[in-house]
Amino acid sequence: MERLAAQIHFLLVCDQLKTVIRTTTLHDGSRYENSAEHSWHLALMAVTLSEHAPKGTDIQKVVRLLLVHDLVEIHAGDTFFAVSAAGLQEQSEKEAQAASALFGLLPADQQQEFQTLWEEFEAQETREAHFAKALDALQPMLLTWGGNGLGCTERHPDLTREKLLDLKQKPLQRFPSLWAYARQLLDQAASRGTIPSATVPD
Amino acid sequence: MERLAAQIHFLLVCDQLKTVIRTTTLHDGSRYENSAEHSWHLALMAVTLSEHAPKGTDIQKVVRLLLVHDLVEIHAGDTFFAVSAAGLQEQSEKEAQAASALFGLLPADQQQEFQTLWEEFEAQETREAHFAKALDALQPMLLTWGGNGLGCTERHPDLTREKLLDLKQKPLQRFPSLWAYARQLLDQAASRGTIPSATVPD
Ligand SMILES: [Ca+2]
Repeated sequence: MERLAAQIHFLLVCDQLKTVIRTTTLHDGSRYENSAEHSWHLALMAVTLSEHAPKGTDIQKVVRLLLVHDLVEIHAGDTFFAVSAAGLQEQSEKEAQAASALFGLLPADQQQEFQTLWEEFEAQETREAHFAKALDALQPMLLTWGGNGLGCTERHPDLTREKLLDLKQKPLQRFPSLWAYARQLLDQAASRGTIPSATVPD
Repeated sequence: MERLAAQIHFLLVCDQLKTVIRTTTLHDGSRYENSAEHSWHLALMAVTLSEHAPKGTDIQKVVRLLLVHDLVEIHAGDTFFAVSAAGLQEQSEKEAQAASALFGLLPADQQQEFQTLWEEFEAQETREAHFAKALDALQPMLLTWGGNGLGCTERHPDLTREKLLDLKQKPLQRFPSLWAYARQLLDQAASRGTIPSATVPD
């Protein structure tokens, strides 16, 4: 029962992801989102939006990448997506240490499996990692400016429509339907006044 | 863009699963768990504990069942696992209505896909549904009495070790290693005094 005990200890440490708080609120604005429920939402998005990935994308792999991708935050904390380059470098060292500490709780074969999943997401070299990253970029936009989204101008007055378009282009432009949707969503938010914009969209 | 708009509307309604509160607390006891983060934890358990399912179990299917299985709670609420038979019947009608309302937001082919996943979990006729259910039965036990679990005697004085063994046998006994672990966990909790027990285990 040694393997099972190690696996369950790992899973109980992973419970802490529910206490890592993100900078995004729930869609209804009632509270900040945590990284565990965020990971669930992304995995559900992967299943629901699978037709927007190129043919041949392994959606089950995308789901596994998403279930695991934020676990290092248990030791390293969440990173605001508009962080500086120096901040990003420091964060990335912390996350590598966090990955060894956390996945090292598992039996060696599984440590390797989880480390590989996490590295695949981070390296952004496969189409599965690209799609996972695109969903991770899109989800907070949906919560904040999609549907009845309240925006986040009070918390982040610097987040203009232009800055968002600039930051989100890289992860999203590989997926034309998602990128078109994201741009339309920001145009509508600018028209409704839920995001600051230098130019008034048509 | 009509399909994508429907899919995203569905995903924004699904955000509400983050506000459905369960009767279990996080492992550190700091707050109650919600059904979205619970679903993430179960999906991660499926990946981590896959070797404890019989050979040939489709773990990716188990993950999809788990991502979707609680969604009906958005409209129907969570059910305490020790509810009465009459209460269960009423809950099950509410959940069937909730499934049509929620999955009906999706394009017809996907409505069918999600409805089928949800029904497969509920029907408990496939080994994937059995494994998903076993994890759903085990996870709150881990949070409450595993590791440094604090128990829940104040909130649920009626939950004795004997009652738990009785309630958890059905979902767990198909998986010998998990069932052995669960029994050991309850024995240890009884010895530590974090669960009431009529008999003192060896
Ligand atoms: Ca993320």
